[in-house]
Order: sequence, then structure tokens, then C-alpha cells
Amino acid sequence: MNAKISVFEQQINEAVAKVSINEQPVTLFEPIGYMLSLSGKRLRPLLTLMAADLFDKDVTSVIDSAVAMEVFHNFTLMHDDLMDRADMRRGNPVVHKKWCDNAAILSGDAMLIEAYRQVEKVPAEKLPTVLRIFSDMALDVCRGQQYDLDFEQRTDVTETEYLEMIRLKTAVLFACSLKTGAILADAPDADAESLYEYGINLGLAFQLKDDLLDVYGNPETFGKKIGGDILCNKKTFLLISALKNANPQQLEELNGWLAKTDFDPETKIKAVRAIYDELNLKTISENLIEKYYLASLDCLAAVGVPDEKRKELIALSENLMYREK
Amino acid sequence: MNAKISVFEQQINEAVAKVSINEQPVTLFEPIGYMLSLSGKRLRPLLTLMAADLFDKDVTSVIDSAVAMEVFHNFTLMHDDLMDRADMRRGNPVVHKKWCDNAAILSGDAMLIEAYRQVEKVPAEKLPTVLRIFSDMALDVCRGQQYDLDFEQRTDVTETEYLEMIRLKTAVLFACSLKTGAILADAPDADAESLYEYGINLGLAFQLKDDLLDVYGNPETFGKKIGGDILCNKKTFLLISALKNANPQQLEELNGWLAKTDFDPETKIKAVRAIYDELNLKTISENLIEKYYLASLDCLAAVGVPDEKRKELIALSENLMYREK
Repeated sequence: MNAKISVFEQQINEAVAKVSINEQPVTLFEPIGYMLSLSGKRLRPLLTLMAADLFDKDVTSVIDSAVAMEVFHNFTLMHDDLMDRADMRRGNPVVHKKWCDNAAILSGDAMLIEAYRQVEKVPAEKLPTVLRIFSDMALDVCRGQQYDLDFEQRTDVTETEYLEMIRLKTAVLFACSLKTGAILADAPDADAESLYEYGINLGLAFQLKDDLLDVYGNPETFGKKIGGDILCNKKTFLLISALKNANPQQLEELNGWLAKTDFDPETKIKAVRAIYDELNLKTISENLIEKYYLASLDCLAAVGVPDEKRKELIALSENLMYREK
Repeated sequence: MNAKISVFEQQINEAVAKVSINEQPVTLFEPIGYMLSLSGKRLRPLLTLMAADLFDKDVTSVIDSAVAMEVFHNFTLMHDDLMDRADMRRGNPVVHKKWCDNAAILSGDAMLIEAYRQVEKVPAEKLPTVLRIFSDMALDVCRGQQYDLDFEQRTDVTETEYLEMIRLKTAVLFACSLKTGAILADAPDADAESLYEYGINLGLAFQLKDDLLDVYGNPETFGKKIGGDILCNKKTFLLISALKNANPQQLEELNGWLAKTDFDPETKIKAVRAIYDELNLKTISENLIEKYYLASLDCLAAVGVPDEKRKELIALSENLMYREK
């Protein structure tokens, strides 16, 4: 990452560290501070700052909205971890394990409200627009999580449905983070819209890459165990494609693994990955990621700023595409 | 209730019935429609309409904000029912029983966002003010619920702490509903503030009355079982006062009942109520309710409108004070 991005990241970390500190009761706000302190990529607030910087806006004037995106993101993680009954996040116990289920529910609620309080700090004349985009995004993310939960009960999820689910659950927050930065920087409407579409494509590529790393990532660099999605039968692009494209023998074996409740984890991971390999799903998935990545670059190219200004966002996209964790 | 109030209630019910209908996915929005359809008092939106009407504002212009208060209130009920592991609400199964825990979490989240979407419809020039009051209220309600949860683990809760808890958990939403109506009706700041304080006092009296009805209500008219708070050792004003004022013998008996896990419900209710009776807590509680009720009337009297305009709010307060359910 270049020097500018490092400075942005530092500004974001300093601002995030100030959220909800010294608020009472500590039982409500301590889990919020904990969640925000777990080292994350701070990707969404970074997108807000970078979008504003594209239009030469002083990024300190958009930091509150950037923080709103990070706080909102962490609210969804806190509630999703509870709904998924996850144990760990980024090597640390999740909030409902470190405290209790009720802490995750109520501190999560307070976090969603805190995200709105950060959005509310934008200049009054921008507030109606920024707030509408934020609430539309927030409701879309809930829709995405609901589809994700619904898919757990289904075996007939299509690739189209899956892509719509990750658009809602992941990509719209990328898009909203970017568009908000652009709007606050007085960008022309068309440019704000191009950045929104850039974010959608980047978000889709990002999530597909996430699914891929879970199966084909390098255990040395990935940071969490490989094969988690396979073990819990998560309806990722890979599993959905496998169910669709498998021959009768592969399908029988795959369904056998999906139905099994008593198994050796490593054996299941190896067996399912072998079917993915036979179906060439790594390459198919990489090609789809490349497609969205290239589409994102097209959207970025449509933004009416000098090419020189675009290079940090291009570098960020590349880093996300070719990342190892 | 007079004719004007009936018209207001009908307008509120029609507007509430339109919230989130026909939205996808149904798995996310069905629990929201269910929760909103359970017959409630619609008290909070009514306060918004009545506050606006005090200043001769056409109430249809404040209906969205009124709906926001009701949707927010029902969001808190959905999450609180889950946190309290309640089974029934108003004679119907709660959302986490009719569907599942995850439905209550995620549909509740969507409901909080939907409440914001209703608030966002206010005229742009009012938005910063109305939104700040709304978010401050929302965070206070989370604080109140957190104190309520924290109190379950404590035996040394003071009356002052209890009153602060119900101020946050219950009264600030009454106050916010009223103040928002006043602001949208272009009321002078001092009047909006007087209505806020009216709401705080009314809310405190309302909750204390709720606690009292749970113990001393008429089973024929109360609508739910008498003694629920006693059975689950809820730290109400009555229990806190009893623990504080009991003589050694009463305290030993009371602590015995609090510690017991295996008991006949009716026997425990009778025994605890007998201690309350000995300590004269019904009268003490009624006097405190009266104190807040009278304070609310003082606040209402300070609002600069003709006395004629105040009569519906006075009637509403009286109905709440002397209600049987």
C-alpha cells in the first residue's frame, strides 16, 4: 500500500477508536469497543475516503461517514456471528461467546444506532440524500443475510440467486461507502453512480474471492482454517456450481457428504475439493472473479477525474483480487 | 376516548398496516407485519399526532414520524422478548417462538432500519433536529434495556437506579414521540421541551402503573396473568422497595422466595404480595404514580396553547393512570 493509503488507514483507526468510548453503561458499550478493536481491513471506510479524495476533497471532512460504514459493518458481523453460531472471529472469541447472546443482540442494536449517529454528522444539506442511501443499503444487507439464512434450508439455489444474495449482503455496502464519499465531495451525480457500480462489481469479486480462498487458500497465509465453508455445507458459488454441474456419480458423492453428520473433517474437505477440481470450479470461479474485477475497472474508468487520481483505487482493487487472505 | 382520538387511532392503524407490505423476502418481512398487527395501544404514535394537533398542525403531515415511533417500539419488543425468553405477547406467540431466534434478530434489525426510513420522510429542514432526537432516544432505550438486564444479576438496585432505568427504557420514547410531533408542528422550542418533560413524567407514571397492575391488577380486566413479575423475580419498584424496607424477618422470607427454584406459582405470588401489603407498598407506589402524573400535568400546563387544546392529552393521561390493563 502506498503512503496515502497508510495515512488514510491511520486516520480511520484513530476515528474508530473514539466511537462510544466512555459511554455508560459499560456492559452495553464494552462489546462494541471490543468488536471494533479486532483488527479488520477497514476496507469500507477506506473506500469512503478514497472516493472523496478522487474529487480532491479533504478526507477529514468525510471521516464520520467513513466511520459509520465501519460501525455498520461490525454491527452486521456481531449479529451474523450470533445467527451463524460462530465461535471465533479473526482469532478471537465472538461477542456472544466472550459475553452472552443478549450482549450480542443489544450491543449490536446500539451499534446500528451509533452508525446512524455518525451519518447524522454530515452537512445538513447532504443529510437527506446520504441518509436515504444509507438506510436503503442497510435494509438490503438485512435482505442479503435473510437470503443467506434461507439458502441453508434449500438445495436448489441457483447461481443467479447466489449472486443476488452476495450483491445484497456484501456489495451494496462497498457501493454505499464509495457513493457516500463521492456525494460528500460534491461529485457529479453520474460519477457518484459510476462509483456505486464500481463498488457493486468490486464487492461481488471480493466475496467470490472469499469463497475461493476458503477452499483453495494457502493455510500459511489465509489466517483461518481452510475448508470451513465445506464443513458446514455453506451454499457458496463453488457448492452451488458443483451441485448444478456434477454428473450422477459426483452428485451422489456430494449429496452423501452434505447429508453426513459424523465425519472426519479433513476427509470431507479433501473429498469435496476433489469434486470441485474434477469440475474445474477453481478456474471457473477465477474467471468469474476476473469478469467482475474488469467490470469494476470499467466503472472506475467512467468517473470523470484525471487518470492519475484513479491509481490508488486500481491498486486497492488489485490487492483485493490477488490477496492471499 | 373522544371522537378526535378515534380518528387519530384509525389514521395510525391504516398507516402502520402499510409498513413493509409486499417487500421481499417474505421471510424477513412477515415477522414485521405480524408484530405490528398484534393489537397494541398505539400510544406512542398517538402522542405524536396529539402533540402536533396541539399546535393546529394537520396530523396527516406527521403520520410518518408517528409510524416511526410505533415501528421502533415494536422493534424493541421483538428483541426484548427474545432477550427475556418470553413465550407470549398480547395473547399471541412471540416472533422467536412462532418463527425462530434468528427471525427475531434479523427482522428486528430490519424494523429498526424501517423506523429510520419513516423518520427520513420529514421535511428536509427538520431532518437534522428530528433525527438527532430520534437517535438519542433510540440509544437511551438500549441503555435502559441494558440496565434492566444488569439489574437481574444484582440484589442492591436502588429506587433511584430503577427510576433512571425506566426513564431510559420507557419514558424517553413517550417524550420523543411528543417532542417530534411538536417540532414538526413548528411549536416554539420551550413548548417542545415542556412536552418532552410531560412525556418523561407520563412515561414514568405509566411504567410504575404497569408494575403495580402486574401485582394488584384485576385478573378479569388485566388481560394477562397476575404476578408474572413476582414469579421471575423482576426488579420492579415494588420488589426494590420491599428489599429496602423489609424488617429482618420479612427480608429473610423474601430472599427465601427469590432463591427458590421449585415452588407453586400461586403460593409464591400470595406470599410476596403479603409482604408488599405489610409494607404498604401499594399505597406508596400509587402515591409515586400520582406524583409523576401531577408533574406531567404541570408540564402540559406550561405549553403555550389555549386550555381547550389540552383537554385530549389530559384525558389520555387520566386514562393511562386509572387504567385496568
